[in-house]
Amino acid sequence: MDDKSRAPVTVIGLGLMGQALAEALLSAGHPTTVWNRTSAKVDRLVAKGARRAPSEGHALDASPLTIICVTDYRAVRSILGAGERALDGATLVNLTSGSSDQARETAHWAQQRGARYLDGAIMAVPPAIGTPEAVILQAGRAEDLEAHEPTLRALGTITHLGANHGLAALYDSAGLAMMWSVLNAWLQGTALLRTVGVDAATYAPFAQQIAVEVAGWLPGYAEQIDADRFPAEVSALETDVRAMEHLIEESEAAGVSTQLPRMIKAMADRAIAAGHGGEQYPVMIEEFSTPS
Amino acid sequence: MDDKSRAPVTVIGLGLMGQALAEALLSAGHPTTVWNRTSAKVDRLVAKGARRAPSEGHALDASPLTIICVTDYRAVRSILGAGERALDGATLVNLTSGSSDQARETAHWAQQRGARYLDGAIMAVPPAIGTPEAVILQAGRAEDLEAHEPTLRALGTITHLGANHGLAALYDSAGLAMMWSVLNAWLQGTALLRTVGVDAATYAPFAQQIAVEVAGWLPGYAEQIDADRFPAEVSALETDVRAMEHLIEESEAAGVSTQLPRMIKAMADRAIAAGHGGEQYPVMIEEFSTPS
Repeated sequence: MDDKSRAPVTVIGLGLMGQALAEALLSAGHPTTVWNRTSAKVDRLVAKGARRAPSEGHALDASPLTIICVTDYRAVRSILGAGERALDGATLVNLTSGSSDQARETAHWAQQRGARYLDGAIMAVPPAIGTPEAVILQAGRAEDLEAHEPTLRALGTITHLGANHGLAALYDSAGLAMMWSVLNAWLQGTALLRTVGVDAATYAPFAQQIAVEVAGWLPGYAEQIDADRFPAEVSALETDVRAMEHLIEESEAAGVSTQLPRMIKAMADRAIAAGHGGEQYPVMIEEFSTPS
Repeated sequence: MDDKSRAPVTVIGLGLMGQALAEALLSAGHPTTVWNRTSAKVDRLVAKGARRAPSEGHALDASPLTIICVTDYRAVRSILGAGERALDGATLVNLTSGSSDQARETAHWAQQRGARYLDGAIMAVPPAIGTPEAVILQAGRAEDLEAHEPTLRALGTITHLGANHGLAALYDSAGLAMMWSVLNAWLQGTALLRTVGVDAATYAPFAQQIAVEVAGWLPGYAEQIDADRFPAEVSALETDVRAMEHLIEESEAAGVSTQLPRMIKAMADRAIAAGHGGEQYPVMIEEFSTPS
């Protein structure tokens, strides 16, 4: 599948995700060099057409673009820093999970050694890599990304967030908060409805419909936040909080957990105590923006 | 707009929602009788073609179907019970917000007086009433609903949940839990990203995309719950919890609220402590189904 017209690329780290990345690049015809701490996973990729790098240094030297996806940022620094090598001219795309602070520190560290650095986050599971459904967030300088975008597009849909290297980690965390919140709300509803004999499969499409509908409100609600004006066009917080009490009461009466319902109401109570009872839900951005 | 071929209907309670209900029925050509505790709101509807009932009793007698949408269930019982009248042959559709216990008690009370009773919940704002976007949940006997469905369809999309009269209130509460959870997760992400200069309008489409994608997983995850088997096909809880720690750390470092992130992790920690670390997220139905 090696194609001379395709840019060469190196993949460091061959966990489930790293293997999926290397396979997608091979499938798209990129000459792909791989390196991993343990060699068994390398053998699998070599059998599919990848080139084996004998060391981290050889891996980095083999291609102008190196994609690294390992356990954590400590491993990133340990691999890239082996032998205290210079990284002049290399472009590093770090897809390792970590915090925005770690991303910014690693960007600084890599740039001091002469590398161009992009910090990314993969919003997909390994089997989706190589399809447009795999959204891969990228943070760093636009020109560094543009130079390698044709190669990176073999992995999925590439979204540039901005120059701040911490952005990919922040979007990742924010997206996961949404993921867990949708799942938790669905579990709360499922727990409630199972007490009256409604099974999970019966309730799920309803939960899905509500989540999709509410998600559609977010762009409009975002305008209220950016304008810092929260007129109660649809409902006021002091009305919402009565329905929150119903949710707590229903959960208590059904004998299911009340932790999520109580947290929902606690946030709203705080906003009402701060004088926002007559305003619309997004006014709670103030409570969410305050340490607690 | 009065149309002899359309079934007559009575609307009791003319708050914002009651007015919208009466107007949709009038627009669809139903001879519509209205009653409200105060008369100013009645005048507005009469000007649009509604008939004024001089008392609760006359309102109930005017039509085989009475829709009631008032402040709370206490008001429902006070209005319907005025004069200790029998309700023989009447069909009551109660769209008042309340708990599932109140719905079941009121169903029992109404049936003892000879009425057919449906308990409903309106999943829409008043301006949507009369359009297919207005989903109106109905709980009660299917034959009672079918007899009046052509009339009720003038209000929106009618969804029958089952015979248990508490179901509409439970679905309503569960749906609201989803609504608040999507909004809270979006606010958490917005708060985080504003600390690095990303405005709410820039972040909102990303949050929307994640919510819609995760909502699409629910029917599949529901099958795991109904089968009571939670193989870690995509991710295991013990892996998820590390990303939850990142979310808490990012929120702390950014100086925003950590209340939602901590609650997310607390639920997962409990499931892991119960021995479910190697299983997939929906296994947490056990924690959500347990009083706490």
